Amino acid sequence: MKTKIVLIGKGNVATHLKAALEKQNFPVSQVNSRTLENIPDGDVYIFSVKDDALPEVLEKFPAKEGLFVHTAGSIPMDVFHGANSRYGVLYPLQTFSKNRSIDFDHIPLFIEANNQSDEDLLKTIAEAISSKVTILDSEKRKYLHLAAVYACNFVNHLYKLSAQILEEQDLSYDLLLPLIEETANKASRMHPKDAQTGPAARSDKKTMDRHLDLLPDGDIKEIYRLLSRSISADAAMY
Amino acid sequence: MKTKIVLIGKGNVATHLKAALEKQNFPVSQVNSRTLENIPDGDVYIFSVKDDALPEVLEKFPAKEGLFVHTAGSIPMDVFHGANSRYGVLYPLQTFSKNRSIDFDHIPLFIEANNQSDEDLLKTIAEAISSKVTILDSEKRKYLHLAAVYACNFVNHLYKLSAQILEEQDLSYDLLLPLIEETANKASRMHPKDAQTGPAARSDKKTMDRHLDLLPDGDIKEIYRLLSRSISADAAMY
Repeated sequence: MKTKIVLIGKGNVATHLKAALEKQNFPVSQVNSRTLENIPDGDVYIFSVKDDALPEVLEKFPAKEGLFVHTAGSIPMDVFHGANSRYGVLYPLQTFSKNRSIDFDHIPLFIEANNQSDEDLLKTIAEAISSKVTILDSEKRKYLHLAAVYACNFVNHLYKLSAQILEEQDLSYDLLLPLIEETANKASRMHPKDAQTGPAARSDKKTMDRHLDLLPDGDIKEIYRLLSRSISADAAMY
Repeated sequence: MKTKIVLIGKGNVATHLKAALEKQNFPVSQVNSRTLENIPDGDVYIFSVKDDALPEVLEKFPAKEGLFVHTAGSIPMDVFHGANSRYGVLYPLQTFSKNRSIDFDHIPLFIEANNQSDEDLLKTIAEAISSKVTILDSEKRKYLHLAAVYACNFVNHLYKLSAQILEEQDLSYDLLLPLIEETANKASRMHPKDAQTGPAARSDKKTMDRHLDLLPDGDIKEIYRLLSRSISADAAMY
């Protein structure tokens, strides 16, 4: 008998996870995390709700047999302490958007559980949907989540600032796409500390001053100053 | 007769440009920009040297017939004023590394010249090696170069900081590669202002505070604060 899975939440992660699990023939029910109505019985309950909302959802959640799991990078496993005796984490390290389909098989999944047999159970489920499964404790997962903020959220914001600079000159943001793509591709073939280029990396003060003159005062200019300083400090070290 | 090209410089851009031009059967000679020895006659002289070094190279360069061109994003075309009567710019918007081959056909090239017939000549050369050729004046090119610093140089530095966070926990930087790849792919399918995710985008102060607690004092922590503030300000606007 396949493990019966109950997904709590209807956000981006829940949507993609459901599709991946059903593709592997797991029976999956999905429950609205706000109303928590009609909760079926299952073997594993996966809470995929906003990080902030999890404690509140757990308070309202009825007592159930089975394994409780969440999908949040930054929340320790013991958030479940008191809510259930069997618990764990299944954290997919990826950025999800509702309208983009994603090949789950390539998404690194990080799992842990508070006992060996549940760790084994989670491992079986995780390995059914991804080829990249790692057992990782809550402490290390915090750092993984933090690193992901730099590599994804902050990176996207830099894309946005570059788009803003171009669009204010009536230039299309699309012009940058080949550069964005190659910068990311390079990251998979060489360590980013060896891939650094640009005026800050070669301490080219003249070019940096010219750039600062083009920027309006505000965060965008502060970001230029701070990141350049950080790059130059690295360049001086290697 | 094919346009005879003399490349001054042996750096990454020069190396890739030479390969792309020769693939299209342009006769190309290459000259060391430091020694400037044995400079052959050509129709077009392409100066592909460090931005800072260009004025000095031009001072030492002998008088020549032909079109003078540089490849620097941040340097105005009139750097050639006084050095030659015919001049222009051929700026490839890409990050080059010596050991990575690059499909030049997909690199956006931005050109300008100080007279119409040389603009036409440059256009012919540029279109032979790339399908993305745009005529762009020096003023706009400055902003393009500035935007590229955010989308490439600064992005790579964020990759490097994320690697640092992982490596200090004995986790492999490679774990982030699927996330880096998807973040860049998303940028080609939706505008980055619509793709923003993460704690700052949803003003999740608890998670941000937990992250700040994990970070050592210094630029890496300042970068977290400043970028989060800038993302939150955007999120409040849209």
